[in-house]
Amino acid sequence: MAASITLAVSTVIFALRPHPDTGHLALWLPLVRRIRSPHKGQWALPGGPLRADEDLAASAARNLRDTTALTPRYLEQLFAFGRPDRSDNRVAPENRTVSIVYWALVHADVASAGVESDNVHWFLAEDVPTLAFDHNQIIEYALWRLRNKMEYSRIATAFLGETFTLSELREVHEVVLERTLDPANFRRQIETSGDVIATDEFRMGGRHRPARLYRHNHSIELADNGPLTGR
Amino acid sequence: MAASITLAVSTVIFALRPHPDTGHLALWLPLVRRIRSPHKGQWALPGGPLRADEDLAASAARNLRDTTALTPRYLEQLFAFGRPDRSDNRVAPENRTVSIVYWALVHADVASAGVESDNVHWFLAEDVPTLAFDHNQIIEYALWRLRNKMEYSRIATAFLGETFTLSELREVHEVVLERTLDPANFRRQIETSGDVIATDEFRMGGRHRPARLYRHNHSIELADNGPLTGR
Repeated sequence: MAASITLAVSTVIFALRPHPDTGHLALWLPLVRRIRSPHKGQWALPGGPLRADEDLAASAARNLRDTTALTPRYLEQLFAFGRPDRSDNRVAPENRTVSIVYWALVHADVASAGVESDNVHWFLAEDVPTLAFDHNQIIEYALWRLRNKMEYSRIATAFLGETFTLSELREVHEVVLERTLDPANFRRQIETSGDVIATDEFRMGGRHRPARLYRHNHSIELADNGPLTGR
Repeated sequence: MAASITLAVSTVIFALRPHPDTGHLALWLPLVRRIRSPHKGQWALPGGPLRADEDLAASAARNLRDTTALTPRYLEQLFAFGRPDRSDNRVAPENRTVSIVYWALVHADVASAGVESDNVHWFLAEDVPTLAFDHNQIIEYALWRLRNKMEYSRIATAFLGETFTLSELREVHEVVLERTLDPANFRRQIETSGDVIATDEFRMGGRHRPARLYRHNHSIELADNGPLTGR
């Protein structure tokens, strides 16, 4: 078998935006309609072949820029998917593709203003259609990684703007982890963690009393990736 | 630039064997001497090009079998390393290699009986020479992952035989984490975790009183890899 192996980079991009029915925040991701075989017309993760002189993470950032006109707040390598049968070999048996997949978080307000067209569309993470290749499974794994990472790192702030209230930060956790958190416990845990810093500013909110704004503590990495931090 | 990209799989293989000076357990890994350019004659991680019809994990297991004549007790994808300048492009500028790296744990007693030759040699993890390509950095990252994983998963037992005493299990943790652990605390933590199961057998040890043997609880995965478990 003289098949050649194509190396592609794909990116799972998460943002929080309001749910169209409830108005509450929900997890969304953009997908791209395939314009060529195999799986022509089906939705898929943004991605494409790695360019000859391009770094892997740079290729993922390019996917993101091309799809959403955004730069990521957080970008991490997820996994390399390479089962020999993962592409539809009936159509092009000589074209095996190994995909190195990244996942990214972008800020909601900016994402809302992102590019949307006939061939790029944002879907609710809970309502993704049947995708090309093994991309449904890839998204399932990315969601699992996101939820795990949110428990033991500080990436929640990557979904938010420069400043945010503790209620907003708690809502991000609640949406991603799919469970409600006790406000007092959450406040205590965050305040002792040192992950966020209180500012002197407040958010004025209708009938509520003003809520203090916090910002991410930039002296702490969003996630601890050890010797690979910053790569 | 019309460079082609080669996809390779390499594997970092860890085992615990006695330190030649102290006799205490230490972390070892096998390396392979390169027999062709670039970096001919230098030590490197076992690995090679992905075969056209081969699964990624199967390729890693083949590296392991070819190098050590062993099957892994634990095998996990580590990271895809793909910086455009990571190969020595002066020698072969048209040959860029992206390496998908796995890491594996093998059982010490078996590893001791493994293949060793002019071109395969086991090194102490704390005493690895300057390797070809970016392989020193890859090992550094694999060590970081191993230490992290040992804190929140059950992989320590993969270094041991079918049955083991709690002292032996604690020694594995101490060697990998590079710190001493309180025996009573460790025993309490392990016993409440349910990760290991007490057998009715005992290890008789010279002047010491007999120590109960435990075995890994097979109903629990060695590490929680979510939707990718078993892949």
